Amino acid sequence: MFELTPYLEQQRRWINSELDRHLPDDHTRPESLHTAMRYCMFSGGKRIRPILGLAAQALFKEPTDETLLPLLAVEAFHTYTLVHDDLPSMDDDDLRRGQPTAHIAFGEALAILAGDALLTLAFEWMAQCAAPPPWLPGQYGLELAEAGGHRGIIAGQVEDLRATADSAGADDLVEFIHLHKTAALIRAAVRIGAMAGGADHDAVEALTLYGCKLGLAFQVTDDLLDETGSTQEMGKPAGSDRRHHKCTYVAVHGVDATRRRAATLIDEAVAALAPLPRTAVLEALARHVLDRTH
Amino acid sequence: MFELTPYLEQQRRWINSELDRHLPDDHTRPESLHTAMRYCMFSGGKRIRPILGLAAQALFKEPTDETLLPLLAVEAFHTYTLVHDDLPSMDDDDLRRGQPTAHIAFGEALAILAGDALLTLAFEWMAQCAAPPPWLPGQYGLELAEAGGHRGIIAGQVEDLRATADSAGADDLVEFIHLHKTAALIRAAVRIGAMAGGADHDAVEALTLYGCKLGLAFQVTDDLLDETGSTQEMGKPAGSDRRHHKCTYVAVHGVDATRRRAATLIDEAVAALAPLPRTAVLEALARHVLDRTH
Repeated sequence: MFELTPYLEQQRRWINSELDRHLPDDHTRPESLHTAMRYCMFSGGKRIRPILGLAAQALFKEPTDETLLPLLAVEAFHTYTLVHDDLPSMDDDDLRRGQPTAHIAFGEALAILAGDALLTLAFEWMAQCAAPPPWLPGQYGLELAEAGGHRGIIAGQVEDLRATADSAGADDLVEFIHLHKTAALIRAAVRIGAMAGGADHDAVEALTLYGCKLGLAFQVTDDLLDETGSTQEMGKPAGSDRRHHKCTYVAVHGVDATRRRAATLIDEAVAALAPLPRTAVLEALARHVLDRTH
Repeated sequence: MFELTPYLEQQRRWINSELDRHLPDDHTRPESLHTAMRYCMFSGGKRIRPILGLAAQALFKEPTDETLLPLLAVEAFHTYTLVHDDLPSMDDDDLRRGQPTAHIAFGEALAILAGDALLTLAFEWMAQCAAPPPWLPGQYGLELAEAGGHRGIIAGQVEDLRATADSAGADDLVEFIHLHKTAALIRAAVRIGAMAGGADHDAVEALTLYGCKLGLAFQVTDDLLDETGSTQEMGKPAGSDRRHHKCTYVAVHGVDATRRRAATLIDEAVAALAPLPRTAVLEALARHVLDRTH
């Protein structure tokens, strides 16, 4: 019987220890920058993106420290997006995972620069790994840039900044934002993990659908948690989306429809795994995303 | 007889037309982001980094649209650094090359995001090109990350933000800032250009020294221009370094010693070319850097 909780704990320990090994030493110059980078990376992230990538990889080959590296890059990239999203000129958040955000802890300039440095480091780690055939050597970097750049996360953030629950076409808008701001990088983590394991085009295709549905479900349940969770559970003020009149799935469709959508998306994610062998862990991870709301 | 002015003009036209072809269309969503990215890229940059890279490349092979791409990436990266350096929490500059800076034109959030998007796009372009042997396929991305990341430009910017002309060890500090904030990316442009042309390790080594000395000379003459130039010549307020009490070469060593240092650095850059054939263009480009101050 597969036990999810110890599995998650074990993967997190491995990921954190490899991040620690690869991140710059905070006793090297400039110490303030390296301290800020490490603070951002070790503020209690659940490491869901690299964990998903490792689970996808394990369908094909046992992951190693070496094949984990492109997934550490995804996590570093994810962390940069949080740091920049929290800035005063963006979402202006003071707390993240129960701790002061980077610009509160280190000032705005150093927060921007630590984000820039994590973004750059993510691509450095990608460039250190060549993807195996049939993929291009630079495929990991291309995947990250597509998911994280001007037609991915940044497109989602630009629309998110100007959208409100009353925006014209709010239902299309919330879908666009969730697909770009959240699903794109989760999908990329699953794809990159699978590629690093030696998956072929067909397998990556199936996992792409899984990652996309799961990524949407992840953001939809986050919207639910913001509405229904406590400040303590979330590590940031509950109900902040509603107070800021954000264009969330809950704001546009209501709590009940949001719950149904999340469940449907998880079913679709699991169904996408049908062509693949040994998918118990990926299924359990998908169900876990939904369980967060109970 | 080699004529520098028409050469520079011709290279700039080529670089600008290829940038135009590769940058996202500003009629695609999100239009505001793509418009901001293009505004930043087409605000009158002199394209000195890709021009130097092309000249280094031409020692070995005639550059093509394809081998220009990694140098466009260097220029996109350089542009992102300017956009983020100009932000209110950093240098707080309203004018750059005589035009409103990105955060003045588009607001702070979009300026940060346009910078992030250009940074990401730079690595996307790098990942599209595999460096030829004897270099690693991901070598271009590694070069850019080393020059631009936490031990390159960002290290320089962190020190620059806290340094003043009166800081303890100001002479070491100004050297550290100039090496990291300016010379590193110019050196990388020369290295990447040479690699794309098929240069071997020895040739790249010689050009690395050229790029480093030239990059330092470039910043030292910028410090001179800030002190001695007019607002019109520079496209930004003259004397702003002095007013902000910045740790510049002029502030630490005075105008005369700065002029001498710039001339020495250019001589050293030219001397570094000795082992290489057909270096007239690279020599002329080095002399051109110094001529800016006359």
